Amino acid sequence: METPDRTGRARRRIAGDALSAPRALKYRSLSNPLLRQPAFSADRIEAIHEAALRTLEELGVRVLDGEARAVFRAGDAEVDEETQMVRLPRALTKALVAKAPSRFMLRGAHPARDVAIGGESCAFVHVGGAPNVADLDRGRRPATFADTSNFIKLVQASDVIPLVQPTPEAQDVPVELRHLAVTEALLTLSDKPLYVYARGRAQTRDGFAMVRMARGLGEAEFAAGVHAYTVINTNSPRQLDVPMARGIIDFARAGQASIITPFTLAGAMAPVTMAGALTLAHAEALFGVALAQLARPGAPVVYGSFTSNVDMKSGSPAFGTPEFVKAAFGAGQLARHVGLSWRGSAGTASNAPDQQGVWETLFSLWGSVLGGANMVIHAAGWLEGGLTASYEKFVMDIEMLETFAEIFQPLGASDDDIGYEALAEVLPGGHFFSAAHTMARYRDAFHAPKIADWRNFGQWSDDGAKTAGERANAAWKEHLRTFTPPEMEAARREALADFVARRAGEGGAPVEN
Amino acid sequence: METPDRTGRARRRIAGDALSAPRALKYRSLSNPLLRQPAFSADRIEAIHEAALRTLEELGVRVLDGEARAVFRAGDAEVDEETQMVRLPRALTKALVAKAPSRFMLRGAHPARDVAIGGESCAFVHVGGAPNVADLDRGRRPATFADTSNFIKLVQASDVIPLVQPTPEAQDVPVELRHLAVTEALLTLSDKPLYVYARGRAQTRDGFAMVRMARGLGEAEFAAGVHAYTVINTNSPRQLDVPMARGIIDFARAGQASIITPFTLAGAMAPVTMAGALTLAHAEALFGVALAQLARPGAPVVYGSFTSNVDMKSGSPAFGTPEFVKAAFGAGQLARHVGLSWRGSAGTASNAPDQQGVWETLFSLWGSVLGGANMVIHAAGWLEGGLTASYEKFVMDIEMLETFAEIFQPLGASDDDIGYEALAEVLPGGHFFSAAHTMARYRDAFHAPKIADWRNFGQWSDDGAKTAGERANAAWKEHLRTFTPPEMEAARREALADFVARRAGEGGAPVEN
Repeated sequence: METPDRTGRARRRIAGDALSAPRALKYRSLSNPLLRQPAFSADRIEAIHEAALRTLEELGVRVLDGEARAVFRAGDAEVDEETQMVRLPRALTKALVAKAPSRFMLRGAHPARDVAIGGESCAFVHVGGAPNVADLDRGRRPATFADTSNFIKLVQASDVIPLVQPTPEAQDVPVELRHLAVTEALLTLSDKPLYVYARGRAQTRDGFAMVRMARGLGEAEFAAGVHAYTVINTNSPRQLDVPMARGIIDFARAGQASIITPFTLAGAMAPVTMAGALTLAHAEALFGVALAQLARPGAPVVYGSFTSNVDMKSGSPAFGTPEFVKAAFGAGQLARHVGLSWRGSAGTASNAPDQQGVWETLFSLWGSVLGGANMVIHAAGWLEGGLTASYEKFVMDIEMLETFAEIFQPLGASDDDIGYEALAEVLPGGHFFSAAHTMARYRDAFHAPKIADWRNFGQWSDDGAKTAGERANAAWKEHLRTFTPPEMEAARREALADFVARRAGEGGAPVEN
Repeated sequence: METPDRTGRARRRIAGDALSAPRALKYRSLSNPLLRQPAFSADRIEAIHEAALRTLEELGVRVLDGEARAVFRAGDAEVDEETQMVRLPRALTKALVAKAPSRFMLRGAHPARDVAIGGESCAFVHVGGAPNVADLDRGRRPATFADTSNFIKLVQASDVIPLVQPTPEAQDVPVELRHLAVTEALLTLSDKPLYVYARGRAQTRDGFAMVRMARGLGEAEFAAGVHAYTVINTNSPRQLDVPMARGIIDFARAGQASIITPFTLAGAMAPVTMAGALTLAHAEALFGVALAQLARPGAPVVYGSFTSNVDMKSGSPAFGTPEFVKAAFGAGQLARHVGLSWRGSAGTASNAPDQQGVWETLFSLWGSVLGGANMVIHAAGWLEGGLTASYEKFVMDIEMLETFAEIFQPLGASDDDIGYEALAEVLPGGHFFSAAHTMARYRDAFHAPKIADWRNFGQWSDDGAKTAGERANAAWKEHLRTFTPPEMEAARREALADFVARRAGEGGAPVEN
């Protein structure tokens, strides 16, 4: 049986000038060439779609916000004010979903940071919404604004995450001021397209104003491009709460993007079957898309899905399960069936950045990638079902995402790549280290990972026998130590700071629940 | 942003009768329904194939064994005795490869243990060839016969590994006796189809005799079915050593299976391009297949590949890299191009069963699975580039393999599965825990993993905050504690023991190098 010749590796070393990495630039705008894996046959996708349309037509969705119900009523939906139920005739659902764009461009501070959403594009996004933070030195604790800033810096430093969002939650900043502080951090520490909170009308308005200020955009310019995105979660099953409904409306009216994501755990908030959970998720996603299109036809939206299962013994949510992977394949099919771009997810229930954390995250990543996700949220740093953002996990996940980014690059197969001359040059039992074919290519031949340690056991042991998690601990500190914020006009930076000071002086803005 | 409602999980618990797991029975004979990912266009696959045929025709392979050269000469190959080079005209290569079966059945002790190789089948196999063993209690050390026996027991206890092989290497048993001791262990501790050493003619002969004895087969019955397999490695580039050549010949003549696997590390023993490394691997695999077909037309063979890259800074071998994944896609294409079943690999260079170990293994597993591998060797317990078999890694890898086994099962999408009635039954904002649709299905709705811990942070912390690796440590001990050997007729067991005693008394059999 084969074992590599570990002693042989020392026979010939290629002299050690550092492998430069301009290849990371191509990570900014990834295109995923892999075949899309189906979970269902075409006729069963149609059956799920029909069941979802029937759900919206006959059962409906409870909408807690009166303004959203008014928008639906004006759009010819059937609205019962007493029960707050909104029912959409299937022809109306289809007509509204057809108005949504299948792709759009998310704008960063400059064109090199623009990110296409839709088609073959695949944008990885880090953990969202975590109230806690953890690292190997200090353990798990409620997150602070310093942590939020740190994660923004880590994201900014990583080309494989092209969007930025405010995670973990800065719990030391009062909720009425938090959107001001973190949006300022997002806009000054990063030049990537950003998430804006949809936690109430006034917070959204502040967020949009800050984006315009930081990016030097007038009202019309802002409305003409997609400069911000938010994530909308329905309250499965079949309910849409006030801030989420207003978020859809406000983002649509402003021409900004809503990622409408039912969070459907099969066996808990959704049917115990994955087909049933996907049917519910599909109905709710289409419902949210319909509201956005009623608010402004053509509004940018993403069909989001986050369907997993629970542990039927305890009710605990699970992620990266085989059911999760197949649900991701199915959700991708459903999004393509209605012609929308698709947001998938990654995740783990692990409480530590350990092996389980890696395998659950990586299975869910493969599910989303093979499902054809245009955005994969929670793809770096997620732990504990989303309750914690982990510094070490973030760094290790980035390593996995860069592996995907490299898998997406085509393998050269020209006659030169095949290299018959190299095969002829090296004698039987010889080696290719010094072949001309090798010497011409070795510098950029292979991806060079940052955390993986490929040294032999002796070298690794002599250097402290560190696990990948321990190496990741050193890596995030180094990233923070060497961080340089992106350039920004001083006047914009000052205007932003003045705005934040003024709005804070006015008491900030309430979170609406 | 979404976070699961962890407090909500306690609202409703489904009373705790253990989830039974008869589903594991279907792991024994897995069929992989996933789409095969290509690495190359059809015309570039043809170009690689043509370059490999040209390599065999114009450059040839050095064959160190005189008998093998005689077999080639008798089969109209061009043989140069002085240089030991064997060249195959491309028409001859094609004609010989066409004689090999595209699928066959590997026989266990009884039909429930038979394993189909070829077509959609996917058999995961654990680590092969490791000289060392490691666990969290005792660290890394040379493996002993007790370790070999332990791994056989662990494999026997796991339905997701349908074949068994002698790993790690029992270094406390002299090499001339080792094949006797470990083959006896394989045949008495397991009833699965087994690996037989190809380390010299006499060892192979002993191995076959022992299989016949243990399984109650006459010479003719044995030769009429495939009861044993071995792995043949070429000495890349373009060299076949004595024991490997004799292994191919002896296994073919006995009607037993050779898995012919060039181990081509791009940039070391193979060209630095993955297309070049695959071209060399393809040529060498076809060369081995040709020798088997000359020895006995129709002999069972598997097209093996193990193509990865090295770290160009140090020459260290690497596994689970993006290059590895794409090479696996390409190798699967090449095997299908010549109509042969395909053996892929998994691996990691990590020195510990840590996070790197998991992600490199899991990336390589996905490469092999999406490449359509009929066998995936080293899929459980591999560490340190194959130099060490890890107990904890074995257990964690089994968890990942079971996840693949579950991903391979179709997702139900009947009208009942979609469950419109369940959607209608549960009110907006409610839950499905007690829905009739749930109650009828919850027991077998989801895969229940063994190592993953889905409890919340408090429960996990109170229970010692164990990592997945630490939980795996407890699991393998429990597997060994509860191990029951398969039933075997006492007479066969005694005959086997007598044979081993007699052959050991005769001095065993030499390893040929």
